[in-house]
Amino acid sequence: MEFKKEFTAAIVIIGNEILSGRTVDKNTSFIASWLNNKGVNVEEVRAIPDKENVIISTVNELRRKFGYVFTTGGIGPTHDDITSESISKVFNQKYQYHPEAYKALEEYYKNSDFNEGRKKMAKMPEHAKLIPNPKTFAAGFYVENVFVLPGVPSILQVMIPYLDTIVKSGKKIISVSIDSGLRESTIADELSVIQNNFPDVDIGSYPYFNEKPGTILVLRSINNEVIKECEKEVNSLIKKISKK
Amino acid sequence: MEFKKEFTAAIVIIGNEILSGRTVDKNTSFIASWLNNKGVNVEEVRAIPDKENVIISTVNELRRKFGYVFTTGGIGPTHDDITSESISKVFNQKYQYHPEAYKALEEYYKNSDFNEGRKKMAKMPEHAKLIPNPKTFAAGFYVENVFVLPGVPSILQVMIPYLDTIVKSGKKIISVSIDSGLRESTIADELSVIQNNFPDVDIGSYPYFNEKPGTILVLRSINNEVIKECEKEVNSLIKKISKK
Repeated sequence: MEFKKEFTAAIVIIGNEILSGRTVDKNTSFIASWLNNKGVNVEEVRAIPDKENVIISTVNELRRKFGYVFTTGGIGPTHDDITSESISKVFNQKYQYHPEAYKALEEYYKNSDFNEGRKKMAKMPEHAKLIPNPKTFAAGFYVENVFVLPGVPSILQVMIPYLDTIVKSGKKIISVSIDSGLRESTIADELSVIQNNFPDVDIGSYPYFNEKPGTILVLRSINNEVIKECEKEVNSLIKKISKK
Repeated sequence: MEFKKEFTAAIVIIGNEILSGRTVDKNTSFIASWLNNKGVNVEEVRAIPDKENVIISTVNELRRKFGYVFTTGGIGPTHDDITSESISKVFNQKYQYHPEAYKALEEYYKNSDFNEGRKKMAKMPEHAKLIPNPKTFAAGFYVENVFVLPGVPSILQVMIPYLDTIVKSGKKIISVSIDSGLRESTIADELSVIQNNFPDVDIGSYPYFNEKPGTILVLRSINNEVIKECEKEVNSLIKKISKK
């Protein structure tokens, strides 16, 4: 299954917590499921450290290669939050206070100290467009096809819906999951014949090793009729092998 | 904190299940924690699809850039398992049955059909060295600095210990976690002063937004004395701000 470039995306996870093994990344799965529903295919995910040169070169490479780039992490108030400044450099734009973002934070913090760290969260590339944050009021932003989101999953998740009309939808990717109840190696040979007969369907095969090992087969396609035919063939194959 | 190239690593997650959002990747966290304990720093993680040209170019780029590359996924019996053949091409080696790997599988499957899919799991680059799999007997392998592991976490986890003597250990990275109980934006300004005073310590700052929001500070360094001094200063700062 190949996608037009405009319906492809990459995700860039910025920060040391994933790389050190401290944290399991949950943002990829959330963003990818949302995009998948919109018919946008995630083609690559990268986790990189808070290093300016790495952020700049990674985002530059991926924004040219794919239709969309989503970054998570590094837009908070501390010294290791360098994503916004790095993205300004990616686009050769001034890194400065966004008036609307500044105002939102000023109001939110009105009864406490509106310190340098808090102000910093309003700094972004000169021509950035805001992605509202209804939870903690530090906005995300986007420039061209690069969308800059926070790393905290609960905040990211309430911000994504604002992008629903901004990120264009392709043909919805239909996905069918079948638990074959069979070991992967039992079904592999004949499954590859089916895959060859259905080039417009991606058949993924995911073994599990619980008490009774088995394999989940996932069919993905943008063509509803073809996927139904393919599903039938896979189900017949499973029946045939299970009877043996 | 900068690491010598020989003590750096990249992880490559191969397969569509992470990219489609279906599965949350747990292998990165396991491999990275293990490497971290050995003093090897993970500098990049990539998740890529089962596409030969992408696997080859990604592994080629990363094996030159970092001391080690660990791949997960794509070494099973099905049509979408193309990692071993791709790695053979990376090293310009024949893709053929490894006699020892073949024998292990033949014995394991002796009472059932030793079909093409099962045999395929013994195919690897000509000069590959095996990584034993005590669970399902389909071995992993390594060539030079590229280590090829399965995608199923429970299998990967019983194979990693075999690499403990093969992957060289650097200076252990010491990590100290402090729950500040303070919001990140309260502590940000003064924390960056401490970071500037301790260039040999990486101070990470990870906000959480539970009932009472707060921030976990993680100090990482290979220098035990310096990290203890830094920890003292961070604790004094937390006390000072908490009293306000």
